[in-house]
Amino acid sequence: MRLRNKPWAGEYIESHPAIVEQDPEKWKGRWYERFGNEAPLHIEVGTGKGRFLTEMAKMYPHINYIGVEKYESVLITAVQRAVEENIPNVVFLQKDVSDLTDYFSPKELDRVYINFTDPWPKKKHAKRRLTHEYFLTKYRALLNDRGAIHFKTDNQGLFEYSIESMSKYGMAIENVSLDLHNSDIEGNVMTEYEEKFSNKGMRIFRLEARFK
Amino acid sequence: MRLRNKPWAGEYIESHPAIVEQDPEKWKGRWYERFGNEAPLHIEVGTGKGRFLTEMAKMYPHINYIGVEKYESVLITAVQRAVEENIPNVVFLQKDVSDLTDYFSPKELDRVYINFTDPWPKKKHAKRRLTHEYFLTKYRALLNDRGAIHFKTDNQGLFEYSIESMSKYGMAIENVSLDLHNSDIEGNVMTEYEEKFSNKGMRIFRLEARFK
Ligand SMILES: C[S@@+](CC[C@H](N)C(=O)[O-])C[C@H]1O[C@@H](n2cnc3c(N)ncnc32)[C@H](O)[C@@H]1O
Ligand SMILES: C[S@@+](CC[C@H](N)C(=O)[O-])C[C@H]1O[C@@H](n2cnc3c(N)ncnc32)[C@H](O)[C@@H]1O
Repeated sequence: MRLRNKPWAGEYIESHPAIVEQDPEKWKGRWYERFGNEAPLHIEVGTGKGRFLTEMAKMYPHINYIGVEKYESVLITAVQRAVEENIPNVVFLQKDVSDLTDYFSPKELDRVYINFTDPWPKKKHAKRRLTHEYFLTKYRALLNDRGAIHFKTDNQGLFEYSIESMSKYGMAIENVSLDLHNSDIEGNVMTEYEEKFSNKGMRIFRLEARFK
Repeated sequence: MRLRNKPWAGEYIESHPAIVEQDPEKWKGRWYERFGNEAPLHIEVGTGKGRFLTEMAKMYPHINYIGVEKYESVLITAVQRAVEENIPNVVFLQKDVSDLTDYFSPKELDRVYINFTDPWPKKKHAKRRLTHEYFLTKYRALLNDRGAIHFKTDNQGLFEYSIESMSKYGMAIENVSLDLHNSDIEGNVMTEYEEKFSNKGMRIFRLEARFK
């Protein structure tokens, strides 16, 4: 994602500690205390500007959402949204997904959303793809037994790769759609990238996957 | 596949026992004797008119090919091709794929091709899809440890289903292409159905899968 020059972003984020948790290690294993209820916990990795997560949080008030995004220049938009709309069940972390196991305990998560993550098309960068075995190992540690990954992308190469990576890892892939916007799947909430790419006429690919 | 009225087909097939094996049980576990060499054994299930298998057999003379097709009205074309071109390393069985384990021994096969198999879109017919667990169990019994399934289709719903079925069965999916004719994959040999559907501008989906 392109970095825009937003010198005030860091300050704005820091001034909203209710929305952007500055010390997530503190809540590891007890996010239900942070949210004040024991609702299921769904996270989105690589949240970007946060439209998906804030929309989901409004639609599903009985689920708690955490968005993980490393760049403040995009996260700022997500935070502004959550502040303006006063959404209680969403929290953001300005963190790297690589460190997920520092912030969550084994089986603490019910779902991991991966939406339009950077494809890193070069083979030598495969390890940075959020569906690489390196990241699957982290999600596996953190998802509970009912838990699943929900993955969407416009990028055909990344989707092909992810099917291979997940099946090789022993995951069961479910509810595949090779053309989401022309499928029976209902209740889809679009992300920023999804709107951009589908407006260009590109197909959207989607799957769910569980560890066995 | 539409059944055309070809009353002479049965007779023609029976008069070419070198090409269409009438008693495949006899060769179970010793197809290498039938072919007169120990080349790897690749089969195609639902061969239809046999263009793929006869082309492959010409390109790869050091592999033995067996095509399994239940309808004589289409198999006749495959047999005519093999007779006219005098291809030594291809044999056909006019049999049902359900009975595969009657004709082959455990680990006797190196590869199973499934090309443009009938999608059976209704859920109640799922068991007839050649990528249903019912068939995967048979392929698993017959493929050796290096063995793989190579699957192509134009049918999006069948491809989605097959990813789910294979990954749920614990198979590792490899070399996925969600648009074969616009991919880097080289040496693709087209089937009759593949030519027909790609000429209509439809995408061709492809994958390989191994049992773990
Ligand atoms: C292409 S954008 C998509 C944003 C959003 N999910 C959407 O669909 O509109 C991918 C985002 O993931 C973030 N990202 C990629 N790898 C990450 C990582 N390891 N840790 C945190 N964020 C990451 C990037 O900074 C970027 O904002
Ligand atoms: C749609 S056609 C495709 C033919 C060819 N593979 C191609 O790509 O052009 C599928 C073929 O599979 C055969 N078939 C389907 N199920 C079968 C089974 N259980 N046993 C044997 N043949 C089968 C059908 O009779 C039909 O000829």
